[in-house]
Amino acid sequence: MKLPKPPYYAVIFHSTLRNNNDYEETANRMCELAEKQTGFLGVRSVRDENGEGITVSYWSDLSSISQWKNNAEHQLAQHHGREKWYRDYRIEISHVEHCYEYVKEK
Amino acid sequence: MKLPKPPYYAVIFHSTLRNNNDYEETANRMCELAEKQTGFLGVRSVRDENGEGITVSYWSDLSSISQWKNNAEHQLAQHHGREKWYRDYRIEISHVEHCYEYVKEK
Repeated sequence: MKLPKPPYYAVIFHSTLRNNNDYEETANRMCELAEKQTGFLGVRSVRDENGEGITVSYWSDLSSISQWKNNAEHQLAQHHGREKWYRDYRIEISHVEHCYEYVKEK
Repeated sequence: MKLPKPPYYAVIFHSTLRNNNDYEETANRMCELAEKQTGFLGVRSVRDENGEGITVSYWSDLSSISQWKNNAEHQLAQHHGREKWYRDYRIEISHVEHCYEYVKEK
């Protein structure tokens, strides 16, 4: 994931799965679809064996985040998320001000 | 994790482990120590079986984040992190502006 220098926006999505039937397929499809949206900068997602996950997606501005939230296919996935997959989730919209990176030399 | 309403700050920490000897003990100790710091609001951490992790810690203000970064025991852990544990990491300091939560009814 190659991001520009801050400032940009991050959507922090914490979630707990109660059921993962067909979940991965939809999650992957949403990443593919997000990549095509205006203002999308990148996404990183981690889920552990207990179903706890954190996904952080990056966006250039608030209006792009709002458009993605309202995308029709994404809306349907959000509905299925509440009906089938998630025990709970928390979404935070945040403005990234600073960034530091470290890569171990080979 | 019970957080106040935004605004507050989030430190997003993406990392990849190359070695996890003694890692968990230090990671747990850092969470314990962070909880005692001024301005600490909460932390959530997920790591998958490939060593990819995301930790998000929450703080009331930038000065508390800076104090935590410079805490002596934390500085030593950061040094060990670069020497022993991390292949790469990325830290983002962000200002949380909005939050939405969902909990499945029992």
